[in-house]
Amino acid sequence: MKRTICNSLADKLYSRGFGNRDGKCIELSWVEFAYLSEKGILDYDFEDVVKKASREVPNFDILFIVYRDLRERGYVLKDRGNYFMGRKNYSMAFYPLSDMDYFDVSEFVEKQYPLILSIVDFDGEVTYYLVDMVEPKGTYFKIPKEELNFEIYGKRAFVFTNLQDFENLTYGRNEGTWGHLSLLEIKYLAENGVVGKNPQVEGVYDIYKDLRNRGLIVKSGFKYGTHFRVYENSMEEHSKYLVHLISEREEIQKISRAVRVAHGVRKTLLLAHNLNGKIVYFSVSWIRP
Amino acid sequence: MKRTICNSLADKLYSRGFGNRDGKCIELSWVEFAYLSEKGILDYDFEDVVKKASREVPNFDILFIVYRDLRERGYVLKDRGNYFMGRKNYSMAFYPLSDMDYFDVSEFVEKQYPLILSIVDFDGEVTYYLVDMVEPKGTYFKIPKEELNFEIYGKRAFVFTNLQDFENLTYGRNEGTWGHLSLLEIKYLAENGVVGKNPQVEGVYDIYKDLRNRGLIVKSGFKYGTHFRVYENSMEEHSKYLVHLISEREEIQKISRAVRVAHGVRKTLLLAHNLNGKIVYFSVSWIRP
Repeated sequence: MKRTICNSLADKLYSRGFGNRDGKCIELSWVEFAYLSEKGILDYDFEDVVKKASREVPNFDILFIVYRDLRERGYVLKDRGNYFMGRKNYSMAFYPLSDMDYFDVSEFVEKQYPLILSIVDFDGEVTYYLVDMVEPKGTYFKIPKEELNFEIYGKRAFVFTNLQDFENLTYGRNEGTWGHLSLLEIKYLAENGVVGKNPQVEGVYDIYKDLRNRGLIVKSGFKYGTHFRVYENSMEEHSKYLVHLISEREEIQKISRAVRVAHGVRKTLLLAHNLNGKIVYFSVSWIRP
Repeated sequence: MKRTICNSLADKLYSRGFGNRDGKCIELSWVEFAYLSEKGILDYDFEDVVKKASREVPNFDILFIVYRDLRERGYVLKDRGNYFMGRKNYSMAFYPLSDMDYFDVSEFVEKQYPLILSIVDFDGEVTYYLVDMVEPKGTYFKIPKEELNFEIYGKRAFVFTNLQDFENLTYGRNEGTWGHLSLLEIKYLAENGVVGKNPQVEGVYDIYKDLRNRGLIVKSGFKYGTHFRVYENSMEEHSKYLVHLISEREEIQKISRAVRVAHGVRKTLLLAHNLNGKIVYFSVSWIRP
């Protein structure tokens, strides 16, 4: 079972994007070798090839299913070990994963962007997500000037005057003679000198603060099942992003769910993570390659 | 600050659904008391009442925001401590939570159904989800008879013959001269005598098996970000349910995300949990009460 081909087939295969050239010969990767055996272009038993390949290549089953799916969509692919460079209308890196795998931030932050996550689900179908690293920016830097007196009760802060001015400046909710704010908002206002008490808030606060500091308006994403919905300039527009905090190693399932919601409401999903003090943002969109 | 009212107002308030009757008097709960003070119906300072109430009642801020929202939607409400019985067109139990709270299966399994989760998000808005316990049932009990020879490679099983018959019986994916199946499917076929090897599969398998045993067709829910999509009778219909495995204590955020997806594609979300060997299913739908 030789993966090096030196006969007349070598040139033909190479021109179709298979193998690495080595003089007159080409060397095929296991995935390419299995694909060409399956198609009958090479005269090896597909079952034997798969058995051998899966002993040599970790994750061979997932790699092969994605490779084959993309080839059949008309892509010319270069095998790069754990991903493929693909060419049809443009060049793109495809990263195969299974629906049981994880999205590992510190690994993915090192990649060249954009890239395409290529995920094999339990039906054996492949779903593709275009992932890019982005620096979201807005133009809204207004912060209320007036000092705010409030009391924290459990999960929210209550204010016993009309909160309309604050609400107009995109903070809190006015109920007429009183209003209420989230502890996230209180903490941000405290850090900007508007209020005196500075509550402890866990987890999502560093993302909230970073988004606000980038001039974005940040409101609850609860109805969409994400942490935040974000406006670029004004709440009179539709919100542009849904932002979701992810942990360093996040289930792929969680990502597909967030993407699906964002896609359904025509917003862009941003996955956000605090990586050693710097917030990184990945935009993720469902595509048909 | 007396929450017992014995003057002429007592009858009037009671007829509007406030308080518990005690002879000629009515006793108001803290939430009712705060609401009537806010509206100026009782002559107490709203701020003072909120301060006292929040010392007496855990979760007062969330309870009050939901109570007020529902009253303003025209509901007559009875305060039951940590939930409200509401009446407008029908009687319903409303359970206030914040978006930082948890859905606790063993607690919720004890309730009377249907009920309405009433969730205050960080903007201070309330979102309502109708929750019911259901017993999903289908009519599809076909299992392939033919024995299946396969090899497990990593995360999937490969079969080196045409898998069309199996695919037609809703198992696996046929690729022509070969096919592949998920380990969940293999395990289920093993338990039904179709295959010999029985792989270890974690987590979602008990739900997969239970759904199949109920006559439902179970396929991947990956594109929707849930564990399964489920058909009642045939794959020629649209799938009826999205099914998601939840842990015993699940973030409310995760539930809102799954509901949003299901709502967008007009399917019913079922949250599934293995509670001491019995699988329980909660249907969850977004409503405007």
